[in-house]
Amino acid sequence: MDLEAIQDPGFLKSYSKKQLSQLAEEIRSFLISKLSVTGGHLGPNLGVVELTLMLHKLYDSPKDKLIFDVGHQAYVHKILTGRADRFDTLKQYQGLCGYPKMSESEHDVWEAGHSSTSLSAAMGMAAARDLKSENNHVLPIIGDGALTGGMALEALNHIGHEQTNVTVILNDNEMSIAPNVGALHNVLGRLRSTGGYRRAKEDLEYVIKKIPALGGPLSSTAERMKDSLKYLLSKGMFFEEMGFTYYGPIDGHDFDDLHNNLMYAKRTEGPVLLHVITKKGKGYQPAEEDASGAWHGPGPYAIDSGDMKKKAGPPAYSAVFSDTVAKIAERDERVVAITAAMPGGTKLDKFAKKFPNRMYDVGIAEQHATTMAAGLAAEGMKPVFGVYSTFLQRGYDQLVHDVCRQNLNVVFGIDRSGLVGGDGETHQGVFDINYMRHLPNMKILMPKDENELQHMIYTAYKNDDGPMAVRYPRGNGYGVTMDEDLQAVPVGKWNIEQEGSDVTILTFGTMLPIAKSAAEQLQKTGVSARVVNANSVKPLDEELLVQLGEENRPILTLEEAALQGGFGSAVLEFLHDRGIASMQVKRMGIPDRYIEHGSVDLIYEELGLTATEVANTVKEIVPSKKKRA
Amino acid sequence: MDLEAIQDPGFLKSYSKKQLSQLAEEIRSFLISKLSVTGGHLGPNLGVVELTLMLHKLYDSPKDKLIFDVGHQAYVHKILTGRADRFDTLKQYQGLCGYPKMSESEHDVWEAGHSSTSLSAAMGMAAARDLKSENNHVLPIIGDGALTGGMALEALNHIGHEQTNVTVILNDNEMSIAPNVGALHNVLGRLRSTGGYRRAKEDLEYVIKKIPALGGPLSSTAERMKDSLKYLLSKGMFFEEMGFTYYGPIDGHDFDDLHNNLMYAKRTEGPVLLHVITKKGKGYQPAEEDASGAWHGPGPYAIDSGDMKKKAGPPAYSAVFSDTVAKIAERDERVVAITAAMPGGTKLDKFAKKFPNRMYDVGIAEQHATTMAAGLAAEGMKPVFGVYSTFLQRGYDQLVHDVCRQNLNVVFGIDRSGLVGGDGETHQGVFDINYMRHLPNMKILMPKDENELQHMIYTAYKNDDGPMAVRYPRGNGYGVTMDEDLQAVPVGKWNIEQEGSDVTILTFGTMLPIAKSAAEQLQKTGVSARVVNANSVKPLDEELLVQLGEENRPILTLEEAALQGGFGSAVLEFLHDRGIASMQVKRMGIPDRYIEHGSVDLIYEELGLTATEVANTVKEIVPSKKKRA
Repeated sequence: MDLEAIQDPGFLKSYSKKQLSQLAEEIRSFLISKLSVTGGHLGPNLGVVELTLMLHKLYDSPKDKLIFDVGHQAYVHKILTGRADRFDTLKQYQGLCGYPKMSESEHDVWEAGHSSTSLSAAMGMAAARDLKSENNHVLPIIGDGALTGGMALEALNHIGHEQTNVTVILNDNEMSIAPNVGALHNVLGRLRSTGGYRRAKEDLEYVIKKIPALGGPLSSTAERMKDSLKYLLSKGMFFEEMGFTYYGPIDGHDFDDLHNNLMYAKRTEGPVLLHVITKKGKGYQPAEEDASGAWHGPGPYAIDSGDMKKKAGPPAYSAVFSDTVAKIAERDERVVAITAAMPGGTKLDKFAKKFPNRMYDVGIAEQHATTMAAGLAAEGMKPVFGVYSTFLQRGYDQLVHDVCRQNLNVVFGIDRSGLVGGDGETHQGVFDINYMRHLPNMKILMPKDENELQHMIYTAYKNDDGPMAVRYPRGNGYGVTMDEDLQAVPVGKWNIEQEGSDVTILTFGTMLPIAKSAAEQLQKTGVSARVVNANSVKPLDEELLVQLGEENRPILTLEEAALQGGFGSAVLEFLHDRGIASMQVKRMGIPDRYIEHGSVDLIYEELGLTATEVANTVKEIVPSKKKRA
Repeated sequence: MDLEAIQDPGFLKSYSKKQLSQLAEEIRSFLISKLSVTGGHLGPNLGVVELTLMLHKLYDSPKDKLIFDVGHQAYVHKILTGRADRFDTLKQYQGLCGYPKMSESEHDVWEAGHSSTSLSAAMGMAAARDLKSENNHVLPIIGDGALTGGMALEALNHIGHEQTNVTVILNDNEMSIAPNVGALHNVLGRLRSTGGYRRAKEDLEYVIKKIPALGGPLSSTAERMKDSLKYLLSKGMFFEEMGFTYYGPIDGHDFDDLHNNLMYAKRTEGPVLLHVITKKGKGYQPAEEDASGAWHGPGPYAIDSGDMKKKAGPPAYSAVFSDTVAKIAERDERVVAITAAMPGGTKLDKFAKKFPNRMYDVGIAEQHATTMAAGLAAEGMKPVFGVYSTFLQRGYDQLVHDVCRQNLNVVFGIDRSGLVGGDGETHQGVFDINYMRHLPNMKILMPKDENELQHMIYTAYKNDDGPMAVRYPRGNGYGVTMDEDLQAVPVGKWNIEQEGSDVTILTFGTMLPIAKSAAEQLQKTGVSARVVNANSVKPLDEELLVQLGEENRPILTLEEAALQGGFGSAVLEFLHDRGIASMQVKRMGIPDRYIEHGSVDLIYEELGLTATEVANTVKEIVPSKKKRA
């Protein structure tokens, strides 16, 4: 059928199994073809084709609430709800969002990009339903990886306790992004295997049938035992213990198995968990065979060969981070790396190859990762937690209460700081300065290039005075020469990149080249701009700031981070604290709203974070030469 | 024995059971007596007397790491490690801390005040031990309530997976602070009851013994079954599933039972969980009979009668919050209250009495609570989450990603904002403005008194434009007249409390009376200070600020909150954004360090947040009359 003609999933109600199979096939071809051009979350979506079809066939969206955990596996849902025609624009500026988006469709009842939120959302929606005496279904669709996130377990605990009608679809593909971690994973593994519980159950049922033959005192025992056994031997012990009725394992690519179990679930009172086994990448061989997570969210690729169109180029910041940690670890046994289910994204998989015993992948568990790092540091180790800016948000209280308060030597490699591009709103790393700058004892650095990054990681490692965070952007460096020897950079000491006499631009990281380019433009109009690499966001370079105060020339601060309470505010705070109150200080950065997906350059344009706009802003605050004369 | 003479727990090694019992009794008398004067966490500590004694007898602290989760149950540990003589100063300014404190003793190897961190810390310390090839024990002591916190479950999952040697002491008193919540609690309940697993196990073992007599094809089945059964029927199924060896239930007041099981644990490889049943308040009848949590952390009390010396006085802010929510809920069925295991502290227990079906206590689970509120709001309800400022830190990512990003109408009643007194460092509510002000769509209010509080809660409820947070301090209001009718206050519109012509003090909440008092002092020295109740921290009153800019007189901002990125910074940001750059703006508030315990008034003195210091600071920024003349 013409997928782009689909307006609404209603047509599925009357679809036969054969028609469904045909449609599944068409959807797979569509995804494989479209994503080969745009890139996107291919693996997860190929895995949920049949599941999504059956959910839309048996339930009435949006009355029934389909809540996609993490949200990156909602492409099939998007196709079935009238958005196939927009896949050419997937993850592009003003194009189709890679995650559920309420503004795109009434069928997107919940938005996510971070994992493990769906059960809490479901509990909220189910509670609302019950209070309103309505009768819709609430169906969180959550992966086995996301289930290791603490908040999902909190929600599981609460739903089980309240016995609220929620139908949890556990989409178990034995991977989160990377292969999965945690004891819970082992639980799922045992459930998956037919050899375990199932056999025990059959064996025991056989024995119980024989028991009456024994007669005598045993019969009452046997009666009691049957009750106990019913409880003990139901499959999915773990979930049953948590108060859920467990159905599974279910073949997630078998329409009959899905249909039958979803119908059971519909008839079951209280919370239900359907354990659906799916194959990530199903139907596209390179993705099916993926062991590393490369096909989780690839860029463009050649369909036939499965070759990813990788840009050759300078090393990624993540790789420089990981290599530097490995380099340091060679010389110091105290160095330990931690990732929260992101060995590939953070490139710490490279570190792990060299030091398998000194790398901990804790699963999707940033809270635990942060405090475990604190525990390591409390015992004299040098833990390095490589984590995306947006995901460290999950560890905020652990930063406040465990790391910074105890002033422990934890190194944070904060990846994807700043704008991230296609993943958009939920993934922008624009808040880390704001959520860390007010934490006592914390220090925050950002390098201007990959060479400065390696020195900063070394600096953070050498630091023995509490936590230090080095933030760096998504993507590749500039191909600058990498120094052979690592050196500690002075913290709280900025570098004047170029001198100028009319205005000072204080900036760092990705904004530095833009500031330099603005300075060039300004030069042509007769304005001389000093450009400072303010690579230490906390502490500030107080000496330089005092000097700037004495000069009393305008200052522009420029940062790829949220403006409220950010770096520019720190500069204002310092100047006013010192009574330097008469200076023009203008701040540029990310405004007070969430920033949608799209290429970083286009977002820069939208936000005015361009050389031209910087130059224009400088002109506003620099008194014209005439006036001064 | 003379408890105050104890320097080190070493003497316990040779103690007999009889001596231990005698000592336990002495410790109980000591605690009941000392805490009757100072107040403190009586219930939790009376519950762990025998447990703490046996841990110090069988393990070698500080080589072996005793990690007290939440930390409020470490008093017995403090007595045994040489600090009995300081209990008269408990929780007082520069006195003994109510939580573990590294600076007090080498036996305090980890500090906590928030719950659920001990397992992550333990995993870090155990990993450090293993990497260093050392052989000490690591023993997190965690309550059943704390186990419902997501990060504890993340850690349980990771430890179980890694099979690291960690000895988890589950201190199960069937309460967290309030009676406990969650499916996990039911799991523990089943484990506690001897009627469940134990009987099933015995029954089955009896049957299995009989099986060989049946002969024939059954025997191989029986063999296989024994293996399955061994797994299926071990007690503590939940924990065994998570990869732990489970011992319990253990009588936490029986030295033999404790001794034997700890010795088993010492001999067990891999992670162990000891399920210790204790009685909160053990040995002091009023505390033993406590059902509401009143004896969890009482103030001073009369030992004989158990009467708490409650100060009569104006209503607590918490009570006004709860009463207001109830008042609104009477008229609007959409109103739902949520607490994370703090029904007593937030006074939402009062709400729950009126509306039992519209109140959710989710356990210690602020992440889940925040996103569940978002789920409720997404379905048109009006959720009100009552939560301490310091604990909402756990929900930071959920604020960013779920509530603010989706711009959902969630009301946050942020209790204990500002300094909290005796609980100190871990509990100060001084960061909430800093961690919320940069969140798009968030609005933040703070009332000047309990009457303004009720109107602000109503305002937040009436608001249909996204999340709103009303922060209010710990303790009682001022006894002002409470208006009969609730009214929405204009958001982003400050009130001039008193006019003045030399300087403007912008402040809110608890600092307003101090500002007024400073203004009085200033008046006497001829300085006329305008005092503004800047009750809307976000958005600011832009109109008024522009006016102040035009006046061009000095401004003092004064807040009981961290200065970096706080309210004062917001004022600076606004003025500079509008090009009003030539004004003196001085900020007063909480400096960039953690603030220890002690009465709030003494801390005010320490930090210079007093009328006199405010007046002095104003004088610094106000040009003297002479100069101006």
